[in-house]
Amino acid sequence: MPDFSIGVDLGGTNLRIAAVSTDGQLLEKITLGVKVALGRDHVIGEMCDAIHRLTEQYRGSGRFVGAGIGVPGIIDRETGMMCKSANLPGWSDYPVRDVIERRLGARVFLDNDAKVAALGEKWLGAGRGVDDLAMITLGTGIGGAIVLNGKIFYGMNGMAGEFGHVTVEPDGVPCGCGNHGCAERYASATAVVRMAHEAIAAGQAPGLAKAANSDPEFSARSIYNLAIQGDQDARRIFHRFGQVLGILLAGLINVLNLDMFVIGGGVASAWDAFAPQMFAELRIRSLVYAATAPEDVLGQTEAASAERPASTRKKTIITRALLGSDAGLYGAARIPTS
Amino acid sequence: MPDFSIGVDLGGTNLRIAAVSTDGQLLEKITLGVKVALGRDHVIGEMCDAIHRLTEQYRGSGRFVGAGIGVPGIIDRETGMMCKSANLPGWSDYPVRDVIERRLGARVFLDNDAKVAALGEKWLGAGRGVDDLAMITLGTGIGGAIVLNGKIFYGMNGMAGEFGHVTVEPDGVPCGCGNHGCAERYASATAVVRMAHEAIAAGQAPGLAKAANSDPEFSARSIYNLAIQGDQDARRIFHRFGQVLGILLAGLINVLNLDMFVIGGGVASAWDAFAPQMFAELRIRSLVYAATAPEDVLGQTEAASAERPASTRKKTIITRALLGSDAGLYGAARIPTS
Repeated sequence: MPDFSIGVDLGGTNLRIAAVSTDGQLLEKITLGVKVALGRDHVIGEMCDAIHRLTEQYRGSGRFVGAGIGVPGIIDRETGMMCKSANLPGWSDYPVRDVIERRLGARVFLDNDAKVAALGEKWLGAGRGVDDLAMITLGTGIGGAIVLNGKIFYGMNGMAGEFGHVTVEPDGVPCGCGNHGCAERYASATAVVRMAHEAIAAGQAPGLAKAANSDPEFSARSIYNLAIQGDQDARRIFHRFGQVLGILLAGLINVLNLDMFVIGGGVASAWDAFAPQMFAELRIRSLVYAATAPEDVLGQTEAASAERPASTRKKTIITRALLGSDAGLYGAARIPTS
Repeated sequence: MPDFSIGVDLGGTNLRIAAVSTDGQLLEKITLGVKVALGRDHVIGEMCDAIHRLTEQYRGSGRFVGAGIGVPGIIDRETGMMCKSANLPGWSDYPVRDVIERRLGARVFLDNDAKVAALGEKWLGAGRGVDDLAMITLGTGIGGAIVLNGKIFYGMNGMAGEFGHVTVEPDGVPCGCGNHGCAERYASATAVVRMAHEAIAAGQAPGLAKAANSDPEFSARSIYNLAIQGDQDARRIFHRFGQVLGILLAGLINVLNLDMFVIGGGVASAWDAFAPQMFAELRIRSLVYAATAPEDVLGQTEAASAERPASTRKKTIITRALLGSDAGLYGAARIPTS
């Protein structure tokens, strides 16, 4: 039996713990509802109990390599402190790693959830075999990570990959960070709902208004469902989403010229609603992408042009993530082994 | 006597060739006016003659390590072809490196001028001792380069660092690349002159109009001179310049979180006219910069706040380039030795 590690994905609503073999096979996954209201000690207690249970169970068959934990917040990787977390109130400036290590009596690695998701997709998902990629995680906000030579690129303070707060509209919607027009104000689940409520308030979106009234959980998913059913106002929201994501991605491609850009996170499942406009922006707004796009992404006329010599240049791949919500779990399990 | 290499800076108006010792001392520099109109064979002939003269002269005292050439255009580093050059018409799709190597009978390294300038600043200028930095070169357009672990980061096709065509105004001024609102349409020498002519055409800029009429070489420098003399319309142009450069830089800091960002190129000498607005944008538009700016860049109140614990976090340095137009020359000479 193979060696194994533990991956933990600590979200605002779910806590998931998995034992994963070092060759990437899922051995067992435990999903717990996080009772954030019961406090961090309670959550950490449940997490450590589950880790303990899994290590005991699989220790007989292989060596336990360590545990990695993905958390929704800014991490100081040296100290293992959570500096800031919007989804876990009360965890800021808390020595998460030390507390868990003390309870477990084992070495633990802590990292940001978007970073571990990228690591997961690189290991077992869309980025398998690709050493240089970036991942954009579309969720409540926008998370980001850059992978170079197969490893997360952290930058000087571990803050590289803050894609969500790149300005896309200098005079745009105010953001909690103090800026105006940050990408995540237009291309996230929160943004989709905000844009829907604005359209409803303007009295110009009967379909959205009806859905908002009848659906107590009126969410980005409800609005996506309306869009694929042909509601023009819902479609317009995802058009705007794709436009902004395209502007953001065009900038990243121009700056980084990486092999692959992976779009993940919950809202990536609205791909067919936003991707056409995203690609339209990319072709216009990134001269690096225009020079490196796969032929099937370019228009028929461009690709078929006889004057255009077949290029041997490596292509920029833009793709959806493959592992869904398991990316973070696998990525977290990958940290202790890499 | 030390070993030495040759650095060549091939511009649209000047051709400069230098012998530089491997420890960074300038041995000799030759400056030639480039007669672009006489054709590329003529220019390459003059270049090779000068390289030959220098290598003969210093060969007695040390080993000749090789020659590096910085050129204004997009280079295919594998084939040594110049793919595209706005400033050297007639050189596109030309096997520059092979032709020069054949004439010299020596190994030659070709690279983009903004990339070699960054290498120069990293070796002997603002970035000395800094391994991870980006350089923005403000000239006719905007050039860019990323240095990671002391080496140029090229990306998949050598195109990383296309900062000039990052979108800063989605519905802004059209750019030759096909996009609207590229950074270099607002923060370059060409952009400064364009904005001045627009202000003159609108009939709202008497000082600029007078200068444009009386100065046959009405340039970004003339407009800068007016700005520092207090002309409000000229000042407004550099305010806009600083705003856009700030938006671009804020994005780069959020994405890359590098130790240092160096601002170079001819227009960097207008620093005092554009930098205040650039820093103002950075503080608002980059949460990574806000968390890592040196105290003296933040406002007095912020820095003096007693509640704020002294941070041990490494700081983001934004600085002017130090080597001026010699950065490219030194950087080119550095290529064969690194």
